[in-house]
Amino acid sequence: MTVAADTRTTAANKSFDLGPAAELVSKEEGHRQPLAPEFVCLEDFSPLEVAYDFGRVRREDIEAGPRSIWRYKHLLPVPSNVEEYPNTDPGCTKLVRADNLAKALGVKRIWIKDDTGNPTHSFKDRVVAVALAAAREFGFKVLACPSTGNLANAVASAAARAGWDSVVLVPSSLERAKVLMTAVYDGSLISVDGNYDDVNRLATELAGEHEDWAFVNVNVRPYYSEGSKTLGFEVAEQLGWRLPEQIVVPIASGSQLTKVDKSFRELGEVGLVEPSPYRIFGAQASGCSPVASAFKEDHDTVQPVRPDTIARSLAIGAPADGPYVLDSVRRTNGAVEDVTDAEVVEGIRLLARTEGIFAETAGGVTVATTKKLIDNGQLDPDSETVLLITGDGLKTLDAVQDHVGPKATVAPNTEAVDSALGL
Amino acid sequence: MTVAADTRTTAANKSFDLGPAAELVSKEEGHRQPLAPEFVCLEDFSPLEVAYDFGRVRREDIEAGPRSIWRYKHLLPVPSNVEEYPNTDPGCTKLVRADNLAKALGVKRIWIKDDTGNPTHSFKDRVVAVALAAAREFGFKVLACPSTGNLANAVASAAARAGWDSVVLVPSSLERAKVLMTAVYDGSLISVDGNYDDVNRLATELAGEHEDWAFVNVNVRPYYSEGSKTLGFEVAEQLGWRLPEQIVVPIASGSQLTKVDKSFRELGEVGLVEPSPYRIFGAQASGCSPVASAFKEDHDTVQPVRPDTIARSLAIGAPADGPYVLDSVRRTNGAVEDVTDAEVVEGIRLLARTEGIFAETAGGVTVATTKKLIDNGQLDPDSETVLLITGDGLKTLDAVQDHVGPKATVAPNTEAVDSALGL
Ligand SMILES: Cc1ncc(COP(=O)(O)O)c(C=O)c1O
Ligand SMILES: Cc1ncc(COP(=O)(O)O)c(C=O)c1O
Repeated sequence: MTVAADTRTTAANKSFDLGPAAELVSKEEGHRQPLAPEFVCLEDFSPLEVAYDFGRVRREDIEAGPRSIWRYKHLLPVPSNVEEYPNTDPGCTKLVRADNLAKALGVKRIWIKDDTGNPTHSFKDRVVAVALAAAREFGFKVLACPSTGNLANAVASAAARAGWDSVVLVPSSLERAKVLMTAVYDGSLISVDGNYDDVNRLATELAGEHEDWAFVNVNVRPYYSEGSKTLGFEVAEQLGWRLPEQIVVPIASGSQLTKVDKSFRELGEVGLVEPSPYRIFGAQASGCSPVASAFKEDHDTVQPVRPDTIARSLAIGAPADGPYVLDSVRRTNGAVEDVTDAEVVEGIRLLARTEGIFAETAGGVTVATTKKLIDNGQLDPDSETVLLITGDGLKTLDAVQDHVGPKATVAPNTEAVDSALGL
Repeated sequence: MTVAADTRTTAANKSFDLGPAAELVSKEEGHRQPLAPEFVCLEDFSPLEVAYDFGRVRREDIEAGPRSIWRYKHLLPVPSNVEEYPNTDPGCTKLVRADNLAKALGVKRIWIKDDTGNPTHSFKDRVVAVALAAAREFGFKVLACPSTGNLANAVASAAARAGWDSVVLVPSSLERAKVLMTAVYDGSLISVDGNYDDVNRLATELAGEHEDWAFVNVNVRPYYSEGSKTLGFEVAEQLGWRLPEQIVVPIASGSQLTKVDKSFRELGEVGLVEPSPYRIFGAQASGCSPVASAFKEDHDTVQPVRPDTIARSLAIGAPADGPYVLDSVRRTNGAVEDVTDAEVVEGIRLLARTEGIFAETAGGVTVATTKKLIDNGQLDPDSETVLLITGDGLKTLDAVQDHVGPKATVAPNTEAVDSALGL
């Protein structure tokens, strides 16, 4: 780990190959600094974001690229030879035309971006893959994170594939599936007595102490978060290189939503799509809806809350990117809504029954929020809408266990089956 | 359902569009009959298999096709416009170069065909997609099956997407994840007191009574089973249009193994690959290893057993295609081996820790059997080997729960974390 620490010390002096990434820029006042594993601007204390010098990026080159997020490497902060190193190579998940769901909701056209198809079955594989690639370039050898579960799975898996150690911190209330799916990869999983916001604070302290650990969503967060852009890139490419009219995105820290927005703008800037208006909608569970509250009350800042919802992957009471979510949503004429836990379960079931896609609670939040936005007239039923389904139902079985099950348990004879089916 | 029944009656007189499929042929004596939802030859009582008139099939056409099994539609018994109908569109899963695992096992090269990336996270989505397409062409409207779990998930999901009813029969001992993941799609799930072989017998009886139900692995089995060929097609295409030297395949009914064999032969016949020798190895759990026993004892028939293993998806005591597995394995100079439940768990953990891939018990069987075949010299360490990882670890969490978990549960402070990590 000494190598990593040494490299870190000279980070500011060394020039890194992070592809088109040029420097870091602070979100508030635009202060610029060289690429390094830093996440806060020491002048204005706002988050740092990656700025680029994009060269010419052509559709043909992307289409001829690998079937993973690396096809977009010329739009990401990753080394130019990124695909040569072991990584989980996520992305290129399905965009499903959801005609049954559209009919059930009474709208013209719905697309499901089904990120349950990723290696550990959530969109977190995207951000972790980019974080790992950047962390490798910076000389780190340990991958770490605080997590509400999906990130834990993605970090532990990616570290195993790369042959790295991992340190993963999760709230002790985490779902069994997410705990076991992290532990099985044999990194260091630590369960912490507290909620996600406690765990996140702890991780920030640890990142200060262990300079050779790449905390994907802390000290390498500017790189990590860019990985969510690939959701937007893929949707646009899968629609035949155009932007959707409306998109609904679940919110925890809010990073994903702001990066989908950024991806759509960048696609227009580099000429990969014709810029066209799009509306971004945010989805939260009512039991943890600080961003929805701020949106509805017309605030610019987000008041932290104490989460209480079955949508544990979204249970971040103090969302780091909350204010930027509000910017994106307001600028694009969207909205942020929230739904009850009962609606979340109904959302999971509606998607499963209409499209055969089994989402986790976060997906239930997205579907249920979409329904609510349609019902209250905020979402235009005549425009097409993309729903980001970012996690897998197998990870949150508790949410559905009291609601679905076998019709009957019967003896092995045909009369018993027929009578159970009412035939 | 009357429509389906009527269509069924005239099946033999009607000509169906099932692409290149020409007729059904009995496996024992080669009796021929027209395409229909039949599965047993009434002359020699052996299983029926699809025979083809393959036209010219070119690599370029496949490569330009959809990113799903439908790119191989000219080699499958499905309508020529198959991709226009709602289906789960499985396939095109990753072939991962597993250098860490190869090193751990002391062999030259291992590839993991990672079918956890399918829509319901097992290879069963492939066979069900083909069964659904054929069943639609035959005029059915209900999709049914007996299942050890993964098939249940795939049938219920595909039926939901297609807007069909489903009837799914499972043994009452089934894993919780597989039960809930079937029930959530809102078809008719029936739990049966008995093991899989009881459930399978029951399904065969029901198929006789309910002629308008397409039991994917009973009355439309000849079409269904051809779906497994796509595993072999994809492996060959992903290797750059060549056959692997060795492949390890888990065995339940044995269908998958025989169809991988068939796929390799067909690829050579139609000129998509240069025919080259390959060896097929079968993997079973010792608690249900009737095919491994027959192989080792040099029998041509398979003696049924009463399954007792944690690898419940492979727990078929009377494997329908057992004798044909023996043919494939012996003809290709392979072998069938079996491993204990403890080895299955170690296989799951080994794959997770080396490659970041979390497989279900069936995958553990495949990895552990590979290790055993290497250790006892049956598998050539200097030839490349493909492992079929056909199901997902999230579905069989019980298998690992006593073996992996957090290193510690600690208070939210850095000292507690450092001391838990021994730092
Ligand atoms: C399944 C799922 N969807 C969405 C999110 C939200 O991500 P973000 O923190 O970028 O808002 C998370 C975060 O953990 C998640 O696990
Ligand atoms: C995960 C998994 N792998 C392999 C198999 C074996 O399939 P077959 O019956 O074709 O031998 C099954 C069967 O259910 C399965 O669920």
